[in-house]
Amino acid sequence: MAEKPARRGRGTRTALRAVRDVKMLPSLKRGLPLTEPMSAEEVERIDAASMDILENVGVVFRDEIAIADWKRVGAEVRDGDRVHLDRGLVRELIKTIPETFTYHARNPAHNLPFGKDHAIFVPMTGAPFLRDLDDVRRNPTLDDLANFHKLAQMSPALHSSAHHIVEPYDHPISQRHLRITYSSMKHSDKTFMGMTTSPKNAEDVMEMCAILFGDEFMETHPVVTGNCNGNSPLVWDETMLGAMRAFCRRNQPVLCSPFVLGGANTPASVAPAVAQLNAEALSALAYTQVVRKGCPAIYGHYLSTVSMKSGAPMAGTPEISLMNMMIGQMARFYGVPWRSSASLGGAKTLDAQAGYESATTLMALQMAGTNYMWHAAGWNEAGMHCSMAKFVIDAEQCAMAYRMAEGIRWDDFDVAVAAVGDIGPGGHYLGHPHTLANFQRAFFMPDLFDNNSIEQWQAEGAEEANARAQAYARKMLNEYEEPKLDEAVNEALLAYIAKRESEIPAADALNQEY
Amino acid sequence: MAEKPARRGRGTRTALRAVRDVKMLPSLKRGLPLTEPMSAEEVERIDAASMDILENVGVVFRDEIAIADWKRVGAEVRDGDRVHLDRGLVRELIKTIPETFTYHARNPAHNLPFGKDHAIFVPMTGAPFLRDLDDVRRNPTLDDLANFHKLAQMSPALHSSAHHIVEPYDHPISQRHLRITYSSMKHSDKTFMGMTTSPKNAEDVMEMCAILFGDEFMETHPVVTGNCNGNSPLVWDETMLGAMRAFCRRNQPVLCSPFVLGGANTPASVAPAVAQLNAEALSALAYTQVVRKGCPAIYGHYLSTVSMKSGAPMAGTPEISLMNMMIGQMARFYGVPWRSSASLGGAKTLDAQAGYESATTLMALQMAGTNYMWHAAGWNEAGMHCSMAKFVIDAEQCAMAYRMAEGIRWDDFDVAVAAVGDIGPGGHYLGHPHTLANFQRAFFMPDLFDNNSIEQWQAEGAEEANARAQAYARKMLNEYEEPKLDEAVNEALLAYIAKRESEIPAADALNQEY
Repeated sequence: MAEKPARRGRGTRTALRAVRDVKMLPSLKRGLPLTEPMSAEEVERIDAASMDILENVGVVFRDEIAIADWKRVGAEVRDGDRVHLDRGLVRELIKTIPETFTYHARNPAHNLPFGKDHAIFVPMTGAPFLRDLDDVRRNPTLDDLANFHKLAQMSPALHSSAHHIVEPYDHPISQRHLRITYSSMKHSDKTFMGMTTSPKNAEDVMEMCAILFGDEFMETHPVVTGNCNGNSPLVWDETMLGAMRAFCRRNQPVLCSPFVLGGANTPASVAPAVAQLNAEALSALAYTQVVRKGCPAIYGHYLSTVSMKSGAPMAGTPEISLMNMMIGQMARFYGVPWRSSASLGGAKTLDAQAGYESATTLMALQMAGTNYMWHAAGWNEAGMHCSMAKFVIDAEQCAMAYRMAEGIRWDDFDVAVAAVGDIGPGGHYLGHPHTLANFQRAFFMPDLFDNNSIEQWQAEGAEEANARAQAYARKMLNEYEEPKLDEAVNEALLAYIAKRESEIPAADALNQEY
Repeated sequence: MAEKPARRGRGTRTALRAVRDVKMLPSLKRGLPLTEPMSAEEVERIDAASMDILENVGVVFRDEIAIADWKRVGAEVRDGDRVHLDRGLVRELIKTIPETFTYHARNPAHNLPFGKDHAIFVPMTGAPFLRDLDDVRRNPTLDDLANFHKLAQMSPALHSSAHHIVEPYDHPISQRHLRITYSSMKHSDKTFMGMTTSPKNAEDVMEMCAILFGDEFMETHPVVTGNCNGNSPLVWDETMLGAMRAFCRRNQPVLCSPFVLGGANTPASVAPAVAQLNAEALSALAYTQVVRKGCPAIYGHYLSTVSMKSGAPMAGTPEISLMNMMIGQMARFYGVPWRSSASLGGAKTLDAQAGYESATTLMALQMAGTNYMWHAAGWNEAGMHCSMAKFVIDAEQCAMAYRMAEGIRWDDFDVAVAAVGDIGPGGHYLGHPHTLANFQRAFFMPDLFDNNSIEQWQAEGAEEANARAQAYARKMLNEYEEPKLDEAVNEALLAYIAKRESEIPAADALNQEY
């Protein structure tokens, strides 16, 4: 009996000592079974339909280099740029895509096993607006972008600082990719993404990565992720293909992302839409291996269904969930890691709609077994803005999804079941040694959700989740500590940026990426 | 080509004609695979631990009749009321619980196959407060309750009008169960729930059901659902057991619901908490068969994890999701239908927190394969209030969850894949005959979520989801049409209520039910 008070004291102290934990969680190792809504025959039916599309309908590659590449490997090209891909060639090409690899970060403690059972959470990118710490919707700046990179660095379940989480409007568009890349590298020592807004921009990113990691290291280690969107149905354009080549040549992984608005640029039906998307993804995945055999590549997509009332993309709909589950099956069928979008919302503010939509999408992705969970924090208004408040709530949701996907722990089963006998009918467990030793790891306790009584909540200011999260994000930024870059590396990066900014005209065509 | 304009016109007209569909969806027939996080060995490990608890720790039945019943069937009773249940006896007893049955509603079109692959959505109950159409949090009245019953009647994915969705404070507590039951019966012709706030109250419900359905019919047809909460750990009390007997004797199903606050009244660990909950559920399920062999019974629970910071129950945590998935496996192992709570939230308003929590819970329940999805609409503030706005949003979420759980349709696969060839690279599908013929069923379009541009949203008043849903609920109530009771039945019900209200003193002990 003498043990009990001492243990209770320790338990309480541990609870009181609890401060914000910013230590990154390892790459998620999945323990929960996957949700696979298709039978093996149905997977083969999708595969066959996709291969038929590739052979008979063909895919347009609006890019002379790609057409030449395809001809070189024996693909049939009709009408100048329409590539008809034989299923044998496609299967042969995608066979060399690695099923797993490790992402290397500048802090080796943040390296990430990736693919198969391993998954990572990556913030949203590409928002032309933000909702700031005062909930004002406005165009972002480089400082805003830096703040998002800092929040990513401090969020344990976010594994990447991504790249242009928001578009920094205070810097010339033609030079922006340099400052964005530098911000990702400087404010976080996690892995990040590389801009693919043009082939030249992608090459700049590669050069900056070479400064940070070394040329030779990059040849054998993935250190960054690019994204190339398709123009569904069945078109890949020159900008994206050129950027893709820049990454593939340096052995860096690219998300091969059909951009699907279900019903608008696909048939209005779940399984046929997946068949088209799958054909598109396969065509790009195959092309990465034409560029460089064996280079890493990720089966990707942006996927929404479209409201037939307004033409607007929707989030959290049942068909998006089902399609994600199906796409996971297809990617695993081909042995390729895959990407989806984790926390989508179409709401204009961080209201209940945003919560329902984001949580539904995130849960579906967990069940689907997505490897690269992009857009996992901040996304709202169909990607038109990134909300700082939503960013921190989503990051906590990712930590909760992470915990769920790990599955069940059995290590304390016998000792905890024995506690049932200790306590007996009608008792309570709050003071039991097993409870005191385990409560911190037993049940996830969100910081950002209020579960107190209404009286307590009113006494604390009656703030809704949006306002609480703004204050939380502000506090996080105050506590941020920069993971300093090596001084020589930092200087080399800045020198590269200065050199390139002197070369690139400050005005250029509008860059786009989603 | 002449076909196309005509079809387009038809499609557009169909879209414009779309009015609120209040036709109830059939009982959900699941097509999506279940998420089962335990191996067969792990299921048996839980089963063995639960049986050990039942044999060695025992369960307290604080009720003389139950103790006498248990002695009669040969169970060992120690210390007056602690029943030690042999696993052989438990297995023998639960064997006679029907794995499936059909709920009968007063409108036979609303009968519901139930159990195994079939699932139903049931609104929340028991809220001492509501948030009304002006978002005012106040004590509810019988009129408020009637409004919730009307909303349940009009929501296609809600299969039940439940019972005291909110507590009507304008009627004496001791007589309230009569008016609540009448309200369920009068305002909706779907199935409903019966009050179990005391054995006498439960008997009144049975009498009223006999007036509505006929005594003999009830003997062979489930027409109502009761709920009996346990006092975890391992206690069942006299009130609940008496009410349970009233239902079982009339062959009506009861939810056998351990009331679990994980970490407070269970061990602080997922699998051991499930082992205890499972023992508790089994003890009550077994008792239903002692009362009446073969009567329907449902494996039930209310399940939350507790914040070790504040002691408050939480919603949407990863452990709740995992436990629900595990409990589903246990219920299926025993061949008994099961209940969980679908749309829980701990938020004080219908803010983002409410959305995240509810959607996470609902998605987990879909994956877990819950048969009786109680608390599926309206629940917020840990059950302290029912929100009219949240009620209608949740009801739409249930319709979306329903669609997801149905799984994938393949009936139009070949024709829709052929459309990919019709459209070709770079086209769009909006005018294609397949799109026009299928868009209304292809992709769910929520009424309550705004997916328009911010400019459009601002032009329409810049309302958040909560305000939009209040207006929507108000409009629904204006459109409500009462499914009239047969006049003789109505008079008989009113006569019964008048008689009982003349017999029951207007003041009585506080009734509680969750």
